[in-house]
Amino acid sequence: MMDYSFLFSDDVQVMEYSAIRRMAKLAMQPGIISFSGGFPSAETFPVTEIRDVTASILETEGKAALQYGMTLGHSGLHEVVLECVQARGIPDAALNQIAITSGSQQALDLLGRLFINPGDCVFFELPSYVGAIAAFRNLRAKLVGVRQQLDGIDLADLARQVDQERRQNGRPKILYLVPNFQNPSGVTLSQEKRRQLMELCNRENLVVIEDDPYGEIYFDSTVVSRLKPLRSMDPEGRVIYLSTFSKILCPGLRTGWVLASPLVIEKLDLAKQAADLCGSMLDQRIVAECWKRGIIQNRLPEIRSFYRKRCNVMLGALREFMPAGISWTEPLGGLFIWMTLSERLNSELLLNASLEQAGVSFVIGPPFFVNREGSNTLRLAFSKESEDNIALGIEKLAQVIRHHLS
Amino acid sequence: MMDYSFLFSDDVQVMEYSAIRRMAKLAMQPGIISFSGGFPSAETFPVTEIRDVTASILETEGKAALQYGMTLGHSGLHEVVLECVQARGIPDAALNQIAITSGSQQALDLLGRLFINPGDCVFFELPSYVGAIAAFRNLRAKLVGVRQQLDGIDLADLARQVDQERRQNGRPKILYLVPNFQNPSGVTLSQEKRRQLMELCNRENLVVIEDDPYGEIYFDSTVVSRLKPLRSMDPEGRVIYLSTFSKILCPGLRTGWVLASPLVIEKLDLAKQAADLCGSMLDQRIVAECWKRGIIQNRLPEIRSFYRKRCNVMLGALREFMPAGISWTEPLGGLFIWMTLSERLNSELLLNASLEQAGVSFVIGPPFFVNREGSNTLRLAFSKESEDNIALGIEKLAQVIRHHLS
Repeated sequence: MMDYSFLFSDDVQVMEYSAIRRMAKLAMQPGIISFSGGFPSAETFPVTEIRDVTASILETEGKAALQYGMTLGHSGLHEVVLECVQARGIPDAALNQIAITSGSQQALDLLGRLFINPGDCVFFELPSYVGAIAAFRNLRAKLVGVRQQLDGIDLADLARQVDQERRQNGRPKILYLVPNFQNPSGVTLSQEKRRQLMELCNRENLVVIEDDPYGEIYFDSTVVSRLKPLRSMDPEGRVIYLSTFSKILCPGLRTGWVLASPLVIEKLDLAKQAADLCGSMLDQRIVAECWKRGIIQNRLPEIRSFYRKRCNVMLGALREFMPAGISWTEPLGGLFIWMTLSERLNSELLLNASLEQAGVSFVIGPPFFVNREGSNTLRLAFSKESEDNIALGIEKLAQVIRHHLS
Repeated sequence: MMDYSFLFSDDVQVMEYSAIRRMAKLAMQPGIISFSGGFPSAETFPVTEIRDVTASILETEGKAALQYGMTLGHSGLHEVVLECVQARGIPDAALNQIAITSGSQQALDLLGRLFINPGDCVFFELPSYVGAIAAFRNLRAKLVGVRQQLDGIDLADLARQVDQERRQNGRPKILYLVPNFQNPSGVTLSQEKRRQLMELCNRENLVVIEDDPYGEIYFDSTVVSRLKPLRSMDPEGRVIYLSTFSKILCPGLRTGWVLASPLVIEKLDLAKQAADLCGSMLDQRIVAECWKRGIIQNRLPEIRSFYRKRCNVMLGALREFMPAGISWTEPLGGLFIWMTLSERLNSELLLNASLEQAGVSFVIGPPFFVNREGSNTLRLAFSKESEDNIALGIEKLAQVIRHHLS
C-alpha cells in the first residue's frame, strides 16, 4: 500500500477542530445534555415558508437556479445584502463591495489566502473563534493573542503586541474580531472602545476583519442600539465586514457574505473561482426570496426572544447552583456563555467527569486560544437544549464541579 | 483611502481564469453564437422532478436539511456515490473513502492544499483543465506540461519529464488528468495506455488525480465499454478519483465527490472544515433523493443522445465548411471539440475577428497550457447552442478563418 505520510504538505494542522470534533462526537451519545454544539436551534428554522419559497423558485426560474452562476453570487442576493447592511447602520455600502460565500467560514479562508504570506501577523482575542484560528493557522500566519476584557479587546494589550511584533521585524497585518456577542465568550465590544480601536488600526495600518454572525440576535434593543459596526466608522476602507444568514434563517443553506473594498472583492472573485467556481445557486435564491418576502426580517423578534429566554434560564441556573469561585459572562445576545473555573480546575478533566457522572457536555477553552492557554475555561452554548434541560444540565454540572472542588 | 497593493499575498494569480472570464463576458452579448461556455445545457435539467424531490425533502426532513451537517457530506449521498462508482467498474470502493465537495473544483483546491508544498511538481497534459491549473498554480506548485496525443497523454514524454525533474532535484508528486473526453481537448485515454500509465506511476511513486466529470456522457457504449477507470487498476491506493453530479443532473446543486484512501479522506475532512465547515445540506439531499428515485440513472441515455447529436452536427459542419489545414478532435463523449489552426494563425486574433465579423465565440487555447503555448488552438463547446445555431456558427467561423488565411 501507498505510504502517504511523506506526501502530505506541511499545512492543514487544525488541531483546534480535531479537539472540538472529538468532543462533539461524545456529546452526540443519546441522553447527553449538550451545551457543546454552536449550532443555531433548528426550532427557529421556518421550514414551511422555505418549502413554499423553494417550490416557487423551481417553478419560475428553475433552469437558472440549477445552472452554474456567478462566482461572487446571485445578483438578487447582493441586493438583499445591501439592504441588510444598510439596516445595520452601514449607509455607504455598494453592490461592488459584496461577495457571497459558502458561509462565513469560506470568507475567512479566502481572505486568509488573499492577505497572508507565511509569517504575517494576525491578531486574535484571547479567546477567539476557532474557525478563524484554523483558517489562518493553515496558511502559516503568525497568530498573536490579545487579552480580552468584559467590554471587548484590551486596547492597551493590542498596542503592546503590535509594537512588539514591529520591534522584532514582524509584519502586523490583520486584526480579527467578533465585536457582538462573541463566539466563544459572549463578550461585546463597547461603543467607546470601537472608536478607539479604529484609531489604533488606522495608526498601525491594520486590516480589520469584523466578523458579525450574531449581531441581529440581541436580547435588549435599548442596550445594543448604541453599538455601531466598525465598518460604519471606517472612511479608509480597512474594515472587511463579514456576516451570514446562518443564524437568522438557517445554516444548511450556505450563504455568508463579505462587504469590503472593491479591490478586495475583485481578488476574492479570483480566489473563489479557483476554490469552488460558485456557491449553491438554489440556496442563494432561496435566501434572497425569503428576504424579499419579509420572512427573515419578520421572524427576528421571535428568534431574539427564543435565545434570550434560554440564556436567562442558563444564567438563572448558574446563579442558583454554581459554587463560589466560578465566574461567567452575561451576554447581551448570541448563543454562548463563557465560564472561568478557579485556577486549580482543568476544564478537560472536568469534561470527562461531567460526561461520565452527569451526562453533560460543553467545549473546553484551550482550542479558542491561539496561545493554547485557558485550561480553566469552557464554553456553554444555550442554543440546543430545552429550557428544562438547560436548568437540569447546569444543576448537574455544578454538582460535578463541587465534587471536583472538594 | 487604504492602499491594498502592499497587503495582498503573493498567491491568487489565476490569469487563466481572468482570460476566460473576459471572453465569457464578450460571449454573453445578445445575438452571439457561443461555443465558449463549458456549462452543461440547462435543457437537460429535470426541473420538475427536482421540484417534487425538494418539496418532499422539506416536508419530511426539513430541519435536518437546513441545519449544519457533516463536513464530509450527507451520509445518504455517500451511499449513492458508492453505488455510482461501483456501477462505473470500481467494485472495491468503501464508504470511508468518500468525501462530498462543493463541485469537483473544491476537491482540486483541497487536494492541492493537502499535497502541495511550494515547488512540488504537478504534471498536466498539454492542454489540461483550466480549473485544476488555477488551483495548483495558486499553491505555488511547479506545473510541468506533458504532451498529449489523440489517444491520451504521451507516456514517453511523461517519463522524460519526471526524469528531468528528478535530475534537477525537483519533487515530482502528482499527475493530474481527465481520462475521458477531456476538457478542453475531447481526447480519451486508451485502455492500453491506462495500464502502462499505472505502471509508470507506480514506478515513479506519483499520486494520480483521475478527474472524471464526463465519463457517463459517452456517445457509443460499444466504443467506451473497454475503458476502465484508473482507480480500478490501482491496488496501492495512489489514484484519487473525482467526479460530480454537475453534468449528469445539474451544476447549480454543488455536489462533487472524491474517492480516495481513507488517510486522504481524513486529512480532507480537516481541510474542508477550515474551508467551509460543510457544503449545502439541501443540495446534497436533493441529489441523493434524485438518485434513489432513479431520476439521474434513467435520464442518462437521453443526455448522451442530446450531446451526441450536437457533437455530430458540429463535426458535420466542420467537415463541410472548414478550409484545409485546420484540424480538430472527434470526441467519444463529453462537451468539447478541440481545434488546431495552421501554425501561422493566432486564436486570440481570430477570436476578436470572429466576435466582430461573425458574432461567434469560443475559448482560445493558451489558458489550458501550463507552459502558455497553444496560440494556434481553441476550444469549441457544443453544449449551449441549438443544432441549427451550431451549424450556422461553424459556417460563419469558417468564413472568418478563410478570410484570415487569404
